Formats: sequence, C-alpha cells, structure tokens
Amino acid sequence: MMANTAARVTSDEPGRSGRKRRAILDAAAEMFLQHGYLGTNMDEVAARAAVSKQTVYKQFVSKEALFVAIVGGMTGAAGDLVQSEIADLGERDNPEQQLLAYAKRQLVVVLTPRLMQLRRLVIGEASRFPALGRALHAGGPGRAVAGLASALARWTERGQLAIDDPVAAASHFNWLIMGEPVNRAMLLGDTAIPGPAALRRHAADGVRVFLAAYGSRR
Amino acid sequence: MMANTAARVTSDEPGRSGRKRRAILDAAAEMFLQHGYLGTNMDEVAARAAVSKQTVYKQFVSKEALFVAIVGGMTGAAGDLVQSEIADLGERDNPEQQLLAYAKRQLVVVLTPRLMQLRRLVIGEASRFPALGRALHAGGPGRAVAGLASALARWTERGQLAIDDPVAAASHFNWLIMGEPVNRAMLLGDTAIPGPAALRRHAADGVRVFLAAYGSRR
Repeated sequence: MMANTAARVTSDEPGRSGRKRRAILDAAAEMFLQHGYLGTNMDEVAARAAVSKQTVYKQFVSKEALFVAIVGGMTGAAGDLVQSEIADLGERDNPEQQLLAYAKRQLVVVLTPRLMQLRRLVIGEASRFPALGRALHAGGPGRAVAGLASALARWTERGQLAIDDPVAAASHFNWLIMGEPVNRAMLLGDTAIPGPAALRRHAADGVRVFLAAYGSRR
Repeated sequence: MMANTAARVTSDEPGRSGRKRRAILDAAAEMFLQHGYLGTNMDEVAARAAVSKQTVYKQFVSKEALFVAIVGGMTGAAGDLVQSEIADLGERDNPEQQLLAYAKRQLVVVLTPRLMQLRRLVIGEASRFPALGRALHAGGPGRAVAGLASALARWTERGQLAIDDPVAAASHFNWLIMGEPVNRAMLLGDTAIPGPAALRRHAADGVRVFLAAYGSRR
C-alpha cells in the first residue's frame, strides 16, 4: 500500500514528512471530489493515504484546513499553468494576439471537470466554511485579475492600450471570457463544457469586445 | 398554526389545494435555505407547513421535485421583477439609457442574500441533482440572455446598435454586468455583495464597454 502511494509522490517533495503530506493531500482530494465535504472523514483519508490519523492531524489541524490546502493547491497549479506560458504578457507588442492566447489558455486550463467539480463543492460549502471560498477566490479570479491588470498597465504605458483603471479592465476581460462557460458548467454540469472550437470562437469574440472598449485606436 | 401559515398565502392562489401548495413551498424554501438540500426532510416540511406528509407527496412527487419547484419559483419571481419595468426594452430609443437602467435593476434584484444562498445551494447539488441546475439556468441567465437578445435585435433593426449575433452580444452584456459580483458573492459570501453606489458604477462601466463594441457609432 505504501508503494502504491509513493508512486504518486512528486520528486520535489523532500523527506518522509513531505511524502506523507503529499499522500494525504492526494487521498483527500479524491475523496472530497467524490463524496463532498461532509461525506469525507479524516479516518478514511488516513486509511487511504496509509498514514495514521495522528499524522493527518499533525499535518493539517482540521478537515477544513486540509480542504483549504487542497483548494489552494489545485487552484494554484491551474494558475501556474495559465501564467507559465504568458509570464511576459504585457512585455510583448501586439496585445490582441497576446490576449487571445491568454484567453484560450485560461479557458482550456480552468474548464476541466476536476476544477469545475472543486468549484461547485467550494461554493456549496462557502456559507459554512468561508475559508474555502476565500482560498478559491484568491487563487482563481483574484490572481487572474491581478496578473492581467499589471499586463494591461504595461501595454497602456507603451500606448498600445488605453486604460484608466487596469483592475476594472482586467475584471471586464476575465468575466467576458470566463463568465459564460464557467457559470454554465456550474449549473449544467461537465457535459455543458464547450468543445475546443467553441472555446476558440468564444475567446476571439471576448477579445474583440474588450479591445473595442480599451484598444488604443478607439 | 394554520392561521400563521395562511397569513403568508397570496390571494391569487385559489382554493384549499392551492393554499396548501403555497404553504409547502414557503416552508420548504426556508428549510432548504437554512439546512441545505440533504439537511431537509419531507416530514419536517410537512410539519412546518401544517399539512400531512401525504399531502406533500401528492403535490410534489419527491424532494427533488419540490426543490425544483422552489428554484423555478424564486428565479421566476426575480426574473419577473427584472422584466416588469423593462417590458418594452428595445422599443424605446436611447439604448444606452435603457441598458443602464436594465443593468442596475438586474444587479439589485439578483444580488440578494436569499438568491445568492439559493444559487450556492443549487451549484453544490448540481452534480447529484441536475434538474436543480437546469431550473436555475433556465430561469436565471437563460431567460435574461434570451430577453436581452430580442431587445438588442430590435435596436439593431432600427440602426441604434450594430450587432451580428444578438444572443452572443446579450451573453457578453450579461457577464460584463453579472459575472464579477455574482461570482464574488458565490465565493466570498453575502458580505461581499457590493453596495448600491458600487453597483451603479459597475453597471455604468459594463454598459460603456458593451456599447464600445456594439454601438452604432463604432
């Protein structure tokens, strides 16, 4: 059982404690996504991760803290994937092409059944466990809007966009692109996630609307 | 207890059966919002509505059917409130002024703690009970986008807007206006609902972006 668990451990987690922590996070993520927050208990997480319940509580003080760590980890990983290829967004010319690439990438990374299920779960528990919603907001739209706002500010400095309030503009961009497909998936389920061709059209449409309002050739 | 319940019955519900149905819907809505879907049972709904459990099942074949009726009722009532004052949206000139009034009204009607809590509840259960999500989608964004699309088409016919795809444009408008505040409330809770002045600014900003893309003076 330990061998099985160890196979899922990434090589950058140093030491036995790190391996156990990773095993707990992996086991708990699957259980939360499958059984919901209330339907998951720490005994079963410990059993599935092949560690003692004491070890689970040593790493995470409560079920809520464990779920917050998972939400932070999953949204952080998705955010890294979006940001990695566009680290210099705002430094290159041609904002239209850059924003289109960014929009397509964000749609593809975020609109996965796993992240949509996590988001449904967090929203369903947000009233009882506000820390979950805060973690998803910070790692999801919060991070996306902040990163985009600084890129928009740089383009504006160089005269390639015309934006007074970069944060408001970034929020407009974010919801033009993400609003419809994310909220459709929230309510209609994973089968309602649009296919690649529809997402590309949707990205192009959103960028066109955004640049009509914020392009420098207004 | 009956008198207490009867006081909440609206006068347009005819007959004893209609009164009982209304009492069941009122009682169940409060219980679902307070205790969640799984935390509500039909026995307690019957007791709170002061009717027999048989009566509850005669009116609603299952707990899911009862919740679908509540979701349909609450989103329908909100949709009616948005639409009532703007029935002739698209018939009057000055789309800018009309769209701004529409955006403000939609923000104020939708961003209530009660509707936000209903939405969180439905999203949390959408995987297990898809009918709930479908009912909220149809009565919420589905209805809003359809209504707006026909108004946009009328303005385009009269040369006051320049729109090729009214449904896509209506979806852009909807998420420019509703995306940020609704999703913020989903994750950060009711205290994150912006105040009236912030909502007015947000509405004006969204309308400006929309008209930059779709105004006839592009």
